Amino acid sequence: MAAKREPIQYENASAEVRAVYDDIMASRKTDRINDFWKVLAHDPATLRRIWANIKEVMGPGALDPLTKELLYVAVSATNGCRYCIASHGAAARKKGMTEAQYSELLAIVGLANETNRLVTALDVAVDPAFL
Amino acid sequence: MAAKREPIQYENASAEVRAVYDDIMASRKTDRINDFWKVLAHDPATLRRIWANIKEVMGPGALDPLTKELLYVAVSATNGCRYCIASHGAAARKKGMTEAQYSELLAIVGLANETNRLVTALDVAVDPAFL
Amino acid sequence: MAAKREPIQYENASAEVRAVYDDIMASRKTDRINDFWKVLAHDPATLRRIWANIKEVMGPGALDPLTKELLYVAVSATNGCRYCIASHGAAARKKGMTEAQYSELLAIVGLANETNRLVTALDVAVDPAFL
Amino acid sequence: MAAKREPIQYENASAEVRAVYDDIMASRKTDRINDFWKVLAHDPATLRRIWANIKEVMGPGALDPLTKELLYVAVSATNGCRYCIASHGAAARKKGMTEAQYSELLAIVGLANETNRLVTALDVAVDPAFL
Amino acid sequence: MAAKREPIQYENASAEVRAVYDDIMASRKTDRINDFWKVLAHDPATLRRIWANIKEVMGPGALDPLTKELLYVAVSATNGCRYCIASHGAAARKKGMTEAQYSELLAIVGLANETNRLVTALDVAVDPAFL
Amino acid sequence: MAAKREPIQYENASAEVRAVYDDIMASRKTDRINDFWKVLAHDPATLRRIWANIKEVMGPGALDPLTKELLYVAVSATNGCRYCIASHGAAARKKGMTEAQYSELLAIVGLANETNRLVTALDVAVDPAFL
Repeated sequence: MAAKREPIQYENASAEVRAVYDDIMASRKTDRINDFWKVLAHDPATLRRIWANIKEVMGPGALDPLTKELLYVAVSATNGCRYCIASHGAAARKKGMTEAQYSELLAIVGLANETNRLVTALDVAVDPAFL
Repeated sequence: MAAKREPIQYENASAEVRAVYDDIMASRKTDRINDFWKVLAHDPATLRRIWANIKEVMGPGALDPLTKELLYVAVSATNGCRYCIASHGAAARKKGMTEAQYSELLAIVGLANETNRLVTALDVAVDPAFL
Repeated sequence: MAAKREPIQYENASAEVRAVYDDIMASRKTDRINDFWKVLAHDPATLRRIWANIKEVMGPGALDPLTKELLYVAVSATNGCRYCIASHGAAARKKGMTEAQYSELLAIVGLANETNRLVTALDVAVDPAFL
Repeated sequence: MAAKREPIQYENASAEVRAVYDDIMASRKTDRINDFWKVLAHDPATLRRIWANIKEVMGPGALDPLTKELLYVAVSATNGCRYCIASHGAAARKKGMTEAQYSELLAIVGLANETNRLVTALDVAVDPAFL
Repeated sequence: MAAKREPIQYENASAEVRAVYDDIMASRKTDRINDFWKVLAHDPATLRRIWANIKEVMGPGALDPLTKELLYVAVSATNGCRYCIASHGAAARKKGMTEAQYSELLAIVGLANETNRLVTALDVAVDPAFL
Repeated sequence: MAAKREPIQYENASAEVRAVYDDIMASRKTDRINDFWKVLAHDPATLRRIWANIKEVMGPGALDPLTKELLYVAVSATNGCRYCIASHGAAARKKGMTEAQYSELLAIVGLANETNRLVTALDVAVDPAFL
């Protein structure tokens, strides 16, 4: 039995999976489905659930769409998820992220990871003004 | 010898440390210094270096000041740095972050941490379109 | 000097290393040694120590063998260790893990990583009932 | 403005929030709501979404309920989320986790975190047999 | 049932646990046992196993004792383990760590956490010269 | 637009970037520049800033140069940064790290990652003696 799950292409997908693929393409106004979804499709319940979460959380709200993608990239860079940096970096570029903005994002991510460790190691108590 | 470094107050600080404190207060237009800096002050070279980095990275650039603070909070929440979430959350609020925006930020941070693990465990290859 | 440590095959291994290889194969009823052990073999003391730990911790106990492998995979997915997910995922399959169980495990790992960040960022105090 | 979100008690909650609280209590056959939910309640959309996810992922499925809680605890221990270890540890105890099983879980979590780093540092390639 | 494991004092410990306590005190030339061991004592097998590992790994070897403690502190600061930073920081001080050395260690830990993220996000390929 | 940043070679670099490259080669007494710097060079301000930090933090100080590289490797192994382990491992070898020392470092990194999780999960309070 192969452990590695291969992407399930549209033509081989079940009706349940195709319904999610269709919604992704319609929502994102594209005819391409990322491999993340095609691999998740081996487990249709999770495919449907994660897509519903992404759609709700990354949809219109209090933050503008570009800021939301930048936050996604920042978390992914902190966790070292290469695929997630690439896919959400591409989404951010599509929504207008410039190279200068990306460079600045990386500088912040790096610096925050640095100061996070200094603060933790020095066990600094939260200033009363922040509570 | 006490291992725990207590915050060094302005009146007890060396001239070298006071110069950094003065620059922090002037740059931030405040008369309060966070305890992070006062604890870092036991090592004046690091105090000076980290402040110089923060000033450059978090200063005017390609991203607006609020977005920069939001990114700092997102990284800190991913790393579990309680102090950093509190201090940069306060800075973000000062720069206009609403509660609705903060809630949305947390939702993105949580979701990105979830999908980061799914992607990694499923070992999804980066789509050629993202390279 | 090459930094990369190549796997040490049985025929090239010292008597000390062979003794560990033999015990691994006997314990696991297999004639294959994973490359993890063959690379660790450059440091026979660590090879012996880690194998002794694995044998004790993953051996018969209060949890059934499949549950133990699932826990190993869950930690490895959280840490992003590709090799560990693959090797302990294979071990779990050998002990009966179905694809539906694996999908469910991944869903839990993802969700726990999400709520862990929400809880931390919101700085929720532990309910007295849990202490 | 206070940054810290205080738990919202049932009597002060909106109808939307009460509906989720009611569903949590009915699903879990309890009259107590953990503070995690009461703090999340400041953002009703996230409260509803996370509870729907937890209910689906942690509900009946291919893995037994105790194993699911053990996996949650294992991830939380790896991420250092004190609240999550306490709350899901309590849930696991309610579902039958013995102290011997908990000790064994911790041993596995510790060991997996150890070998994850050895594997990563030694950059061991995934054995073809695992692919 | 209380979930929290209280430290087991010497006078209340089983013979098996006392044997480990005695060995810790003899090896470390002290009459004090850290609470880590007293809490681990609820699970005598893990107490014995972890102590045996610590004794072997942290004992005399190719690196000097102070360097070994510094490495322990650096990992603990990266993981945000407050107890571990405090206990191994104390051990390092006992073995001669100066405040200037500790400050330098923290600076390295912070900077490495920063550059680790930059490298990962930028997906830099390993230079052939390093392989 | 290609997302992936290719290394910028010396002959194609701006005067600002060349100045940093020249300083790296002069400081390290080498005529080779690692790809990390060549990729960072797309953002000259960050290239200059990170190099200035590395030069200050990794330069002569209270810890000897080899110990500093070992600490860098330990953090990188904990974070799973393959490039960083390779590049700082190479630097450590150049400064005298033996294979036995590297094996010992890895053993400490692994063990610290193990005990960090045990301590966190067991929620051990810091011994008063360590404060």
